Amino acid sequence: MKPVIGVGMVGHAFMGRAHSQAWRSVAAFFDLPAVPSMAVLCGRSAERTAAAAEELGWAAVETDWKQLVKRDDVQIVDICTPGDSHAEIAIAALTAGKHVLCEKPLANSVAEAEAMAAAAREAATRGVRSMVAFNYRRVPAIALARRLVAEGRLGELRHVRAQYLQDWIVDPDFPLVWRLQKERAGSGALGDIGAHIIDTAQFVTGRNLTGVSALTETFVKERPLAEGSEGLAGGSRTGATGTVDVDDAALFIGRLEGGALASFEATRFAAGRKNALRIEVNGSEGSLAFDFEAMNELWFHDHTLAGAEAGFRRIVVTEPDHPYAGAWWPPGHGLGYEHTFTHEVRDFLQAITDGTDPEPSFDDGLRVQRVLAAVEASAAGESRWTAVE
Amino acid sequence: MKPVIGVGMVGHAFMGRAHSQAWRSVAAFFDLPAVPSMAVLCGRSAERTAAAAEELGWAAVETDWKQLVKRDDVQIVDICTPGDSHAEIAIAALTAGKHVLCEKPLANSVAEAEAMAAAAREAATRGVRSMVAFNYRRVPAIALARRLVAEGRLGELRHVRAQYLQDWIVDPDFPLVWRLQKERAGSGALGDIGAHIIDTAQFVTGRNLTGVSALTETFVKERPLAEGSEGLAGGSRTGATGTVDVDDAALFIGRLEGGALASFEATRFAAGRKNALRIEVNGSEGSLAFDFEAMNELWFHDHTLAGAEAGFRRIVVTEPDHPYAGAWWPPGHGLGYEHTFTHEVRDFLQAITDGTDPEPSFDDGLRVQRVLAAVEASAAGESRWTAVE
Amino acid sequence: MKPVIGVGMVGHAFMGRAHSQAWRSVAAFFDLPAVPSMAVLCGRSAERTAAAAEELGWAAVETDWKQLVKRDDVQIVDICTPGDSHAEIAIAALTAGKHVLCEKPLANSVAEAEAMAAAAREAATRGVRSMVAFNYRRVPAIALARRLVAEGRLGELRHVRAQYLQDWIVDPDFPLVWRLQKERAGSGALGDIGAHIIDTAQFVTGRNLTGVSALTETFVKERPLAEGSEGLAGGSRTGATGTVDVDDAALFIGRLEGGALASFEATRFAAGRKNALRIEVNGSEGSLAFDFEAMNELWFHDHTLAGAEAGFRRIVVTEPDHPYAGAWWPPGHGLGYEHTFTHEVRDFLQAITDGTDPEPSFDDGLRVQRVLAAVEASAAGESRWTAVE
Amino acid sequence: MKPVIGVGMVGHAFMGRAHSQAWRSVAAFFDLPAVPSMAVLCGRSAERTAAAAEELGWAAVETDWKQLVKRDDVQIVDICTPGDSHAEIAIAALTAGKHVLCEKPLANSVAEAEAMAAAAREAATRGVRSMVAFNYRRVPAIALARRLVAEGRLGELRHVRAQYLQDWIVDPDFPLVWRLQKERAGSGALGDIGAHIIDTAQFVTGRNLTGVSALTETFVKERPLAEGSEGLAGGSRTGATGTVDVDDAALFIGRLEGGALASFEATRFAAGRKNALRIEVNGSEGSLAFDFEAMNELWFHDHTLAGAEAGFRRIVVTEPDHPYAGAWWPPGHGLGYEHTFTHEVRDFLQAITDGTDPEPSFDDGLRVQRVLAAVEASAAGESRWTAVE
Repeated sequence: MKPVIGVGMVGHAFMGRAHSQAWRSVAAFFDLPAVPSMAVLCGRSAERTAAAAEELGWAAVETDWKQLVKRDDVQIVDICTPGDSHAEIAIAALTAGKHVLCEKPLANSVAEAEAMAAAAREAATRGVRSMVAFNYRRVPAIALARRLVAEGRLGELRHVRAQYLQDWIVDPDFPLVWRLQKERAGSGALGDIGAHIIDTAQFVTGRNLTGVSALTETFVKERPLAEGSEGLAGGSRTGATGTVDVDDAALFIGRLEGGALASFEATRFAAGRKNALRIEVNGSEGSLAFDFEAMNELWFHDHTLAGAEAGFRRIVVTEPDHPYAGAWWPPGHGLGYEHTFTHEVRDFLQAITDGTDPEPSFDDGLRVQRVLAAVEASAAGESRWTAVE
Repeated sequence: MKPVIGVGMVGHAFMGRAHSQAWRSVAAFFDLPAVPSMAVLCGRSAERTAAAAEELGWAAVETDWKQLVKRDDVQIVDICTPGDSHAEIAIAALTAGKHVLCEKPLANSVAEAEAMAAAAREAATRGVRSMVAFNYRRVPAIALARRLVAEGRLGELRHVRAQYLQDWIVDPDFPLVWRLQKERAGSGALGDIGAHIIDTAQFVTGRNLTGVSALTETFVKERPLAEGSEGLAGGSRTGATGTVDVDDAALFIGRLEGGALASFEATRFAAGRKNALRIEVNGSEGSLAFDFEAMNELWFHDHTLAGAEAGFRRIVVTEPDHPYAGAWWPPGHGLGYEHTFTHEVRDFLQAITDGTDPEPSFDDGLRVQRVLAAVEASAAGESRWTAVE
Repeated sequence: MKPVIGVGMVGHAFMGRAHSQAWRSVAAFFDLPAVPSMAVLCGRSAERTAAAAEELGWAAVETDWKQLVKRDDVQIVDICTPGDSHAEIAIAALTAGKHVLCEKPLANSVAEAEAMAAAAREAATRGVRSMVAFNYRRVPAIALARRLVAEGRLGELRHVRAQYLQDWIVDPDFPLVWRLQKERAGSGALGDIGAHIIDTAQFVTGRNLTGVSALTETFVKERPLAEGSEGLAGGSRTGATGTVDVDDAALFIGRLEGGALASFEATRFAAGRKNALRIEVNGSEGSLAFDFEAMNELWFHDHTLAGAEAGFRRIVVTEPDHPYAGAWWPPGHGLGYEHTFTHEVRDFLQAITDGTDPEPSFDDGLRVQRVLAAVEASAAGESRWTAVE
Repeated sequence: MKPVIGVGMVGHAFMGRAHSQAWRSVAAFFDLPAVPSMAVLCGRSAERTAAAAEELGWAAVETDWKQLVKRDDVQIVDICTPGDSHAEIAIAALTAGKHVLCEKPLANSVAEAEAMAAAAREAATRGVRSMVAFNYRRVPAIALARRLVAEGRLGELRHVRAQYLQDWIVDPDFPLVWRLQKERAGSGALGDIGAHIIDTAQFVTGRNLTGVSALTETFVKERPLAEGSEGLAGGSRTGATGTVDVDDAALFIGRLEGGALASFEATRFAAGRKNALRIEVNGSEGSLAFDFEAMNELWFHDHTLAGAEAGFRRIVVTEPDHPYAGAWWPPGHGLGYEHTFTHEVRDFLQAITDGTDPEPSFDDGLRVQRVLAAVEASAAGESRWTAVE
């Protein structure tokens, strides 16, 4: 019999539902060293949390995360709250000897992220593991992209162009949900989706950003207030309006270690683009392109082939020898968004059992946070070149 | 508290795993009238079935489906075996008052399918429901396609072209698995994947095929034998070879009620096409196109728009007002293959509770079976036009 | 100084304009053995022909093709008329010792095509050349496709699926132009565009169709009459209507020499498809796909690559080592429809000078004609399998 | 009889060949107010120019552009030389009363461009016209894009993302051709292809860039020298190497009048991208996307449609009511690269006859030049925000 490892999750909105599906499904598809038990769900409202626990399949409920962190039936704390509470919960959990899976961005500031990374490093010496939930690393196509770069198939890297395009707040009457509030979310498109493409670019290339020059903009500066829901679309309108104090879009150009040039764009105002996390990498021997709206495909150009035969090929990333794909369905039977989380918890469980540090680490999360800070500093300072610390 | 409805599943290979994930997940995403309980799993090998039950989350195990059908904790029998056993199990289950979800094709012959359909009709008078598992009807894009046709957006239908292209047996050394054996599978590509495009075409257009002219072919006539696995790729080679007695590919042209022309192709020899279930429909006022390899997209051409603006538009079928999509993730966060089964069991549970007959019914399955028979008859008779009975 | 070779063209509608652009441009891009001179244009109306000659750059005008055929300044007769006059003009021209380029389909019947092919064979013994204008063979991507098949890159061929989809007569009020009249055009979609995909499939695979089973249909059986224009859209309406006596769409399935299965569809009722000449070929070692609506692209799947790397690659067929492409612009600077004709006259001029028989020959045209006849016979005879003579 | 207007062209390399095809073809497809005569070709080598004139169809030859400018049979001077000679030739021609069509970028410096624009403005008062050859404005899809923006179909503009990706110098052994020499070309990717996307973005949106923040890079700093050819690929290697003093790639972000954010990337190091001039525009009511590698397609998203029906639609820009397209072939019979030049000379001839100022004017060219200068200044100054004068 495999050991059981108890999970306590904080937050049950969008991310909480996604993580729940991962915990619920992972054992049916992967040969795990330990079986997760969905032990406790934590939310602020007792009533809503109980309803969510029943719906999502959690065995018990807490309304105070401090209680959850103390529970004996919890070995993993899974943090699915907005960024303003990450540092406090994560550090407490690590201190209490719980492994921590924390949603991204790691924190709302570099200072918080530094404290978290320090706590994670210290905890690791005690065998306590931590991971930041940049789930897109576990899209099979993205993992394959990294593998191809790591194998040298792209040669010397020249260009990265990364975009994360959404359109859910194009309408100026869309309410001022928490993701549009600096106090809760830290920043707007930049931290929410810009963080994803920064991590994806650094992950796929294996190289960090060294400096940036940036622009940010808030197109709609005043929005209706709503209350009563933590959901993406907010709750009912109050009749009042509030000021949007985060960015609607962030653009920046930069350089990676090793000399490649990079361009980034994160926006919630790209009408018609629903969740277009895109990355293209060009090297001296090949190129890669990906768009999450077609998440089961990776485009690969092998520049070492004869010119008459070369071209971007559409690899349907569902073959047995593709990352993660062999655990699921036959070739061509694609995966969806939620599977990225299943892969994430699978790798986390494996690392915990193996006694290794999972990736992306809190240090990886800190590195992204430093880029976010450099972007904001550059945007605030005439777009001047700003080194990533 | 919602009522609980016990499920007993027969078979735990590819389809069994897919159905298990559906039963496991459905309650977390849909507001169900009754909650399914994964009560019993049935397989021929006690050892392998027990292992599967643990992996997939079934509470109990049977090795004889006749026992499963009798159990009080089973209200739904879910048949995931090869086609040669469908009729016997389904009829016994219906007779025993169990609702039946049966994998496709409904049976290996028209005669069996007729008996099953008759049993289903009779059972319905007793409030016992049955459904054949043409899961692709529950791809949101396919359901949207049907909706657009039903709303008259395509005008008078002129053409259907449907293909189901795979490539998993291109290699002549691929073994003679059960899907290549007439006795088990009934037919080859025709019944396995041809059945899907027949049902999809009839579902999307709302019109049945009235006649066909057909060709079938077995490209590789002798293959290695393997044993010990029911999986897609078979078990270990025995060293011997056997004769392939099913089709590798089936092509046919036909007519639909109302006069539209249709062409169909089902093959396992389309190198590079992994699971390309494709359908295009052209009408006097619009057209639709779909390819399962990009399952979250439906292409729609509105021919009533000004010519300068018209074109096939790529609808990312993940919006709240798309079929099924609202239950899952925000727009652009696509679904995968397995979600079709989740939608299937959701609709089945709903119909059982509502006391309505779910679709596709066994009569729908019989209708597909008649088309398969007409295709085989035409192919065997100089491709002559053969009416679908 | 290069020798000059005089061209006399009969017909100045759609095809006449396309051929004129080819004769006008070819010497600027290809290193020709002989320079064409646009000597004489022939049309039935003196006035309209004179206007066309000025617009298109022809030096002289005739209104009787029998005069044109006799002229000393004409060495090549280029036939751009409807199919009902091809045989008479071509045979007369060949008899008069003129090289003949004849639009497709070669004729309106097998009997005419046989007479033309016989005349061409006889003329060849006198050094007089003939060619049928299946221009799509000269799309660089199609020529590359043939090259890949000929090199064995696809292995043993299994499937061809070819479609030619247009939508210009979806509207039932579109008039009864000559292309919808059996007497002038021979047949409808079948001879006009079906002929192209038959030739393309036979050209790319290097294998002929051996038999077919077919369906044809005329969706709109009565249309307005128009007069005064030979153009695609006809002239002004007369107020009367006439019966459409050709097919609107033709579908057939068949077999190629060597055992591959093939499916074909030609229609003018595919709303939203403008000029979608598509072909896909699957073999044991690779596959190819093409769509004329993206004419500068060929999709190639190399099935011998490792599964994790394989996929359909989009070859932009504009490289110097692609067929024809090197004569034009740098890579990525695509060609258009008219370039197929430029390539055609280039190859024709080269063959004339070299004293070789150009392809596609009148015998190739006859072979297509025999397929068209088999399709019509099968469609008229319960879709029964019909051998291509 | 239509008046004849004599053209004298300077330069006969890549651009000279493209312009020649335009002058040769335009009268056959467009109803022109005046017919161009290909009067004189000018090049530095008498021998090579004579050969080019024969091949391309020019009636006479000059080896000194100062002679060409004086000739009575020349009313239009068409400048197809590298940027270092544009100013001198253009100003002399305008002074001599010749209409001038000048290749892009207008000049190698803002100062030259200012002098040219001033000369053009003065010449216009004498009825002498000038135009800068940003040919991509005449891609039908780009012209349609502008029309849609101008009609307000995109609402308030939020984002422009423009890229021009090529890969012809990825190989470090590719020689140091004139396009890689600052003295001849002014800059590298920036002026050659960056200029095109700047003009395209300003043209499509109808808004100018107001400021930029930029990065440039030269990846390969030393290349083999070659001599004896002005062609794209250079001549034979000398054995020596030289220093590349232009950029290989340029990235910048910026703002447009009205507040939209924009990102630009021009590179010759995007392996596998052959001539990918791409632009996407997002507004509050719709979006547009274009890629020159599929030049006959424009993608349009109408954000005012119901969510369930909205999506990027692929408009095949070959309909009679699309810009320029009606002059050519039936729908779906696409155009190629060279047609952009045919459209360009058609519009130029029309403007000359109408006595109006054609676009893009030298002032438009100057505006692009100012953006190029701002990009270089920002890149040289820590990427600091730099206003476009």
